[in-house]
Amino acid sequence: MDKKEENREEEDQVVNPWEVSSSAGKIDYDKLIDKFGCQRLDHSLVHRVQRLTGRPPHVFLRRGVFFAHRDFNEILDAYERGDKFYLYTGRGPSSEALHLGHLIPFMFTKYLQDAFKVPLVIQLTDDEKCMWKNLSVEESQRLARENAKDIIACGFDITKTFIFSDFDYVGGAFYKNMVRVSKCVTYNKVVGIFGFTGEDHIGKVSFPPVQAVPSFPSSFPHLFKGKDNPRCLIPCAIDQDPYFRMTRDVAPRIGYHKPALIESSFFPALQVFPRDSRRCCSGRCVVIREREGDDGLRYNDGRMNLDGWILKAERYFSLQRFMNDDKLEAAAVIGFEGDALLWYQWEHKKRPMVLWDEMKLLILKQFRSTQEGSLHEQFLALQQVLELSNLGRAMDFAKRIEGKLLAMTLPKLTLGFSATRTDGLT
Amino acid sequence: MDKKEENREEEDQVVNPWEVSSSAGKIDYDKLIDKFGCQRLDHSLVHRVQRLTGRPPHVFLRRGVFFAHRDFNEILDAYERGDKFYLYTGRGPSSEALHLGHLIPFMFTKYLQDAFKVPLVIQLTDDEKCMWKNLSVEESQRLARENAKDIIACGFDITKTFIFSDFDYVGGAFYKNMVRVSKCVTYNKVVGIFGFTGEDHIGKVSFPPVQAVPSFPSSFPHLFKGKDNPRCLIPCAIDQDPYFRMTRDVAPRIGYHKPALIESSFFPALQVFPRDSRRCCSGRCVVIREREGDDGLRYNDGRMNLDGWILKAERYFSLQRFMNDDKLEAAAVIGFEGDALLWYQWEHKKRPMVLWDEMKLLILKQFRSTQEGSLHEQFLALQQVLELSNLGRAMDFAKRIEGKLLAMTLPKLTLGFSATRTDGLT
Repeated sequence: MDKKEENREEEDQVVNPWEVSSSAGKIDYDKLIDKFGCQRLDHSLVHRVQRLTGRPPHVFLRRGVFFAHRDFNEILDAYERGDKFYLYTGRGPSSEALHLGHLIPFMFTKYLQDAFKVPLVIQLTDDEKCMWKNLSVEESQRLARENAKDIIACGFDITKTFIFSDFDYVGGAFYKNMVRVSKCVTYNKVVGIFGFTGEDHIGKVSFPPVQAVPSFPSSFPHLFKGKDNPRCLIPCAIDQDPYFRMTRDVAPRIGYHKPALIESSFFPALQVFPRDSRRCCSGRCVVIREREGDDGLRYNDGRMNLDGWILKAERYFSLQRFMNDDKLEAAAVIGFEGDALLWYQWEHKKRPMVLWDEMKLLILKQFRSTQEGSLHEQFLALQQVLELSNLGRAMDFAKRIEGKLLAMTLPKLTLGFSATRTDGLT
Repeated sequence: MDKKEENREEEDQVVNPWEVSSSAGKIDYDKLIDKFGCQRLDHSLVHRVQRLTGRPPHVFLRRGVFFAHRDFNEILDAYERGDKFYLYTGRGPSSEALHLGHLIPFMFTKYLQDAFKVPLVIQLTDDEKCMWKNLSVEESQRLARENAKDIIACGFDITKTFIFSDFDYVGGAFYKNMVRVSKCVTYNKVVGIFGFTGEDHIGKVSFPPVQAVPSFPSSFPHLFKGKDNPRCLIPCAIDQDPYFRMTRDVAPRIGYHKPALIESSFFPALQVFPRDSRRCCSGRCVVIREREGDDGLRYNDGRMNLDGWILKAERYFSLQRFMNDDKLEAAAVIGFEGDALLWYQWEHKKRPMVLWDEMKLLILKQFRSTQEGSLHEQFLALQQVLELSNLGRAMDFAKRIEGKLLAMTLPKLTLGFSATRTDGLT
């Protein structure tokens, strides 16, 4: 390799929806903002969010995890005027379960939904993964359903959220918008944006409109029919920017607002920075649900060793260098399943928890069987006033919620949200 | 222009789904068969059709209008073994009404459906025309509905026919097959087949799979679910061959039979052979229904001047150099509307007419009011025995049919055939 080529490679960083790599060992985000032409998300904008929503901005805003945007200020203008907008995010179901990096846009979207009280559409691009990863249609759909469970577990407002798989939902108004977008984009244009070659299959060339059209409210007539062309805000990692650059170019030509974006950096990998940090490499990332025979950080109910779980969680926080206010969210989302998750939802609804230590006490109180002997138990025994009436109500509520979740996940996804589909999101 | 270029252009003939032209003044079909790699439809195959169906082969077979095929013999083998197959044809709704050239595949398909008693799917590619002709989605859909009426008028078996618009029907199993096909076709491949350039929009690149997948029975789960992967036969003009060359290439890779084809030459234009003979140029072709203020060859009921209509029809036959057994079909399909069409369907069902002169007498008998004075009337008065009971039954039947047709065309097209969709084609 000659010197020149070596230099070129050292400078190279590749960020597109299918590859994130940097020969320099880390991504230069400033360079990316310049290259993509988006805007830096500055402090004044974060303060404006705080002022408008009347709550502390999400830790991902305060820490600059979401660091770039396109027209986010216009979304805030619209919100201030009382105009409607909606959120759109998604997931390409390429693996069995989400890892922590995948969770970032969902955790942040949940915060945006709560703070602005807005509808949300979540696209599962099983068609994309079928084509890019060479999975069968059936396998891509299965992964989409598995991933949907992880996404649902983030706790979105079920009266305001529509999750769909492309294989289920493409058609009708959605397909019409795909055709409208396709007419406006030349092959040379997609080559310029996505770098396709002549040997790429035409499925790749056809796909960008599929990811584009959830940006337009008319793609969801059952949600937005008769509503006044609401704006769309897309929380996503910055590698998805090319899709929406294309979408924003097309939008005014077919009568829609350009979608706004709020874009995150990438989640650091567990090992030394790899060439491609987005890939979920088995054993090199923390997936949010582990499979049979591997309990990991999962906590379900009192039959498990609670002290052991807390110990593992705290070692994990230390490994990840989590700060105090990250721990709670990480533990809740990564660690809880079944009754524990339902209990957390219930408690959090009643009185939002903000600190890990506070939750640790609560969960010990709730779940630890009195047969377990430990320092924790002895310490806690002093103040253990089992609020039985509360517990009864919580578990009753939990069971009802669980039934609802099952009803949502068992039939095909788009039908799962049938109440939402017919009534519209409010 | 230099000599070399002139020579090149003289030899040029372009035949693809969007352009048919020849600088030599006519299409060289032998050259086309060689270039496309299909087979000539010879006499032995026509005789085999006659033997298998027990009826005279259609005039389009006898006269070589359908002159080429791919694997048509395998369809006949399958039929002989008692295996199922189905027919697939279509229409790109680029104009208000079909012209005579457009009718050829439909008239022939109707014969095939009758002769082999097989299911038929008819695709209206409103998405294609929206993209190629730069029509709005709404206008393309409107043209599809208008064209559907002309197609329905050909008299297909409504218990065995499914007509759909892409804008209505793309989705679900159909979309899944689109993705399966897209994965198997590179951009270079479609450029080789269709000649797209980098400045063509990606809608064009995405479309070939849409036209491909009706060749696969699983695209119609409501028709063929549980059936044993029936073969597909596609009657079409030869300019559509490139789509199905691509489809045949992909079919075995995704587990289907290659669709068979039976391909027609082009209908001669009314004026001197134009550079592009497929285009429907307003005023330069005979459309099968004329619009307000232009009666043309349309005949509706007794309120019109019947003698004038017969005179016009006979002049038209002479102009078109129609032979005797073409006249009847042309008159019925081009000329009849409303009560006259319903009457023709009834009479033809009762006792198939084969000669124009025979029908001329029947229609005069049926529709001419006795107030009209003409040689025809005076001649016919002698033998005018109004079969009132028959007439009553015919009109009763006609009204019921009319109600059915309305019910079929008023709701969206795919719903129109709901009885077929839920029960399957038998």
